[in-house]
Amino acid sequence: MSDQPISRYPVPDLAELPDDLRERILVVQEKTGFVPNVFLTLAHRPDELRAFLAYHDALMEKDSGLTKAEREMIVVATSNANNCQYCVVAHGAILRIRAKNPLIADQVAVNYRKADLSPRQKAMLDFAMKVSQDSRSIGDGDFETLRGHGFSDEDIWDIGAVAALFSLSNRMANLISMRPNDEFYSLGR
Amino acid sequence: MSDQPISRYPVPDLAELPDDLRERILVVQEKTGFVPNVFLTLAHRPDELRAFLAYHDALMEKDSGLTKAEREMIVVATSNANNCQYCVVAHGAILRIRAKNPLIADQVAVNYRKADLSPRQKAMLDFAMKVSQDSRSIGDGDFETLRGHGFSDEDIWDIGAVAALFSLSNRMANLISMRPNDEFYSLGR
Amino acid sequence: MSDQPISRYPVPDLAELPDDLRERILVVQEKTGFVPNVFLTLAHRPDELRAFLAYHDALMEKDSGLTKAEREMIVVATSNANNCQYCVVAHGAILRIRAKNPLIADQVAVNYRKADLSPRQKAMLDFAMKVSQDSRSIGDGDFETLRGHGFSDEDIWDIGAVAALFSLSNRMANLISMRPNDEFYSLGR
Amino acid sequence: MSDQPISRYPVPDLAELPDDLRERILVVQEKTGFVPNVFLTLAHRPDELRAFLAYHDALMEKDSGLTKAEREMIVVATSNANNCQYCVVAHGAILRIRAKNPLIADQVAVNYRKADLSPRQKAMLDFAMKVSQDSRSIGDGDFETLRGHGFSDEDIWDIGAVAALFSLSNRMANLISMRPNDEFYSLGR
Amino acid sequence: MSDQPISRYPVPDLAELPDDLRERILVVQEKTGFVPNVFLTLAHRPDELRAFLAYHDALMEKDSGLTKAEREMIVVATSNANNCQYCVVAHGAILRIRAKNPLIADQVAVNYRKADLSPRQKAMLDFAMKVSQDSRSIGDGDFETLRGHGFSDEDIWDIGAVAALFSLSNRMANLISMRPNDEFYSLGR
Amino acid sequence: MSDQPISRYPVPDLAELPDDLRERILVVQEKTGFVPNVFLTLAHRPDELRAFLAYHDALMEKDSGLTKAEREMIVVATSNANNCQYCVVAHGAILRIRAKNPLIADQVAVNYRKADLSPRQKAMLDFAMKVSQDSRSIGDGDFETLRGHGFSDEDIWDIGAVAALFSLSNRMANLISMRPNDEFYSLGR
Repeated sequence: MSDQPISRYPVPDLAELPDDLRERILVVQEKTGFVPNVFLTLAHRPDELRAFLAYHDALMEKDSGLTKAEREMIVVATSNANNCQYCVVAHGAILRIRAKNPLIADQVAVNYRKADLSPRQKAMLDFAMKVSQDSRSIGDGDFETLRGHGFSDEDIWDIGAVAALFSLSNRMANLISMRPNDEFYSLGR
Repeated sequence: MSDQPISRYPVPDLAELPDDLRERILVVQEKTGFVPNVFLTLAHRPDELRAFLAYHDALMEKDSGLTKAEREMIVVATSNANNCQYCVVAHGAILRIRAKNPLIADQVAVNYRKADLSPRQKAMLDFAMKVSQDSRSIGDGDFETLRGHGFSDEDIWDIGAVAALFSLSNRMANLISMRPNDEFYSLGR
Repeated sequence: MSDQPISRYPVPDLAELPDDLRERILVVQEKTGFVPNVFLTLAHRPDELRAFLAYHDALMEKDSGLTKAEREMIVVATSNANNCQYCVVAHGAILRIRAKNPLIADQVAVNYRKADLSPRQKAMLDFAMKVSQDSRSIGDGDFETLRGHGFSDEDIWDIGAVAALFSLSNRMANLISMRPNDEFYSLGR
Repeated sequence: MSDQPISRYPVPDLAELPDDLRERILVVQEKTGFVPNVFLTLAHRPDELRAFLAYHDALMEKDSGLTKAEREMIVVATSNANNCQYCVVAHGAILRIRAKNPLIADQVAVNYRKADLSPRQKAMLDFAMKVSQDSRSIGDGDFETLRGHGFSDEDIWDIGAVAALFSLSNRMANLISMRPNDEFYSLGR
Repeated sequence: MSDQPISRYPVPDLAELPDDLRERILVVQEKTGFVPNVFLTLAHRPDELRAFLAYHDALMEKDSGLTKAEREMIVVATSNANNCQYCVVAHGAILRIRAKNPLIADQVAVNYRKADLSPRQKAMLDFAMKVSQDSRSIGDGDFETLRGHGFSDEDIWDIGAVAALFSLSNRMANLISMRPNDEFYSLGR
Repeated sequence: MSDQPISRYPVPDLAELPDDLRERILVVQEKTGFVPNVFLTLAHRPDELRAFLAYHDALMEKDSGLTKAEREMIVVATSNANNCQYCVVAHGAILRIRAKNPLIADQVAVNYRKADLSPRQKAMLDFAMKVSQDSRSIGDGDFETLRGHGFSDEDIWDIGAVAALFSLSNRMANLISMRPNDEFYSLGR
């Protein structure tokens, strides 16, 4: 399997990349043991990759009322609704690791309503799915429901913004047929 | 996690079950090392379980123009479209084992169009998804497409019947909140 | 019209069938005056027909908190949502006979919300339609609503299981282009 | 059943109606043997009823490249897609009578693709369903397909206009819960 | 742009039209400064145009519990949901004029939930959208909601009937590719 | 109207913003005559705004096989499909200006299939809508169709990436109820 193309588009060598992107990627490789394909495949357009990473880090790496595992749940649930193979497989792995739970990613991907989650987390995912699939209908009632589960308005922005960012990346991954690294499938199980 | 209920409904003890079902289940347990929850949860209604198993075996265990792995692909792809956690997780494990491929189940579940499959297998899954999600529109053209990929009319019945049977079981699993055994998540990876 | 094919697939002669199926069919013929095409068309695969009949009888013929007419309402409403000609026409006839009401089948098929039904029966069909069309979203609230109309949890299983079983048969009928017998159209009117 | 309300709104007495509407209705009653409820229920708003009848007659009663039975097929197929009980039941009766075929209405209502129709008639209904359910996507290709089946551009207007008019009446009937007369259910069977 | 065809179908000269339609059109031209293309394009079928205008006037020109601007809001919101270019552009212009508000038409077209409207008007549009897109599901609860906002049952008929009439005209406009007059785009801005 | 809130969230003063964002905004204000609300409302989260602008500029401001007007068409068509008021109104204005065509934005928003566009541009928007609404189904056939209209693979990335980026911004705008500046409604008409 490892000789399948990882993108419909040309994939640059690390050596060709702008220094900042190459350095960023080497840090990830150092930490993870491999270079996730999202870096290599989107690096076909360095400016777009740089912006994507900046957006990603601003949401996924910062302090938030949502744990990092909860943010990954949003990615996994909405990405399966959009049938994005890369995002479900890669972020499923990250979710398993961050939640220290080998079952949670598959549960959340297939049907978060049946997953081992708190009512607060299910409300979070209900809203994330609405942002992802039916943002036209968001209204005051949704904010009230989430506040009733203890989410602040900043938390609600975080939920919505993660769902919105992966609306972008799900579409890019489907566009270029981004292939998940084989390593992700078994990480954290 | 192992103390979560596996069904909304009472789950019988093996000892209470009719002999034929208990014996069938013990055979599975012997072979697999555990009793898949589908047996225990549906055994709340022994007559329905017996009929389900008979239908299942008539399609999934017999000789067919489809390999056993291919039949499991149909289960996994259509079950994710119906957001059935039990079927994706349990039959994903069986698919990994039958295909001797640790990646294939997640690929097929999330987006079979991007999976490591032959064009013939993708055509098989296109049709299985149509049977599962839009059977009203099935027409002669679908049969012609499949024949063009080398499927016989008996193979086409098999594809459709597997998709139809799991339309039933996806709904039963969602109805009773059937929980996959923890063992399935890592089998065959 | 009576010379139209009743299936895309070969239809066996009664004489060719296994004894148990032939006897079962002769009993129906004796009682009804004709052999419903579902028996003949599915008999192309005797094992699958046998399993289907066992499942059918386990749900449709037994004692239940739902009347037999109510179970037929579930079949008719969900089968029209799936555009299954055989099931709407044949089970519409059975519904008219069991409800002793010549109007009820057409009402339930087209829009059960406007049919001459009790609020309890409309709640039953709301849930059956959810099982049929959106089982992913079933939750505790649905059970509470039905209990509020006096349904026991066993009744709820019955509602869901009938909707699930005909999710299977709607797809099989659409797959093989199963044709309703001409007799069904006017029975019970 | 005959004492159920036929509309959510007040139903005028024939005697209260403007002369032209009363006379029109009496002609129908004379011919049919009863007054179809569409006349009485929409007569709550005489100007709207008068306009509706004018539109109806301009399409359904005139000479056309479509037979009267074919125009009724369009009504029946699209009205079931909109779950309009009045239109399916009442126009189903008219279709049976005009086609001199007791089976055709139920076939067309549930799934016209499986009905005893010519390929030309199925192409007509494919287009009628597109006008009814997805008019945004109509394009040159649709016109070419229909011309390939021998339809003139005036015929295509007729197909589309009948589907469009019953898009209106389906919604009015669902709005006011217009009840079909009991007589329609068995007419022409 | 002004030399683009305004219909797929022949457009009659005013001189060829029946006197009543020509006179009606001349009155509009006198008042508006141009002849809206709906008159010319539908005049290909004078009887249908006459019926359409009668229906239109019976709803849109009469006294009602809804203001004329509110009735135009219903047209604009539902017509965008059906992707009808003529109706959104032409009735958007009328809405701007009647509401004396240059922003309101675009707001209502794209997402009425975010428009500068009262809660009563948003409830009106919620119901209009349900009539337009999901009339099968209308029930007593919808009437109660609207009465809670002060709408009478006659007002509710008006809301539903306007949505129903433009369900017809949206489909006719999409069928014939009716082109809005260039003048409409800037009227009332 | 001008005193309506422009976001559900606090809107920072220019003076509070990081220097780079304030300078960027002042340049826009200088050029446009006002500050588009997207800058002020997203500036509630400076890091996210900075990333968004970087992504935006990488796609919308660079040289491309698509004209700037064509890229705005993608924004307008897909944003109306997502019912995003800010994006349709603001980018509609930009489209009118870039295309020097006062009609084009409303045409593209409501139904691009009926807009004054070339077949190549309609194929571009067909694909953009697929990326926006159904990216799961993108396949080789889509690339072949676009290449047949003269698009290079880099152009196809541009089409898809613009649709993907505004999938993000449509959701953010719906989440925070971002209000378009009054000025946009009439710009370029």
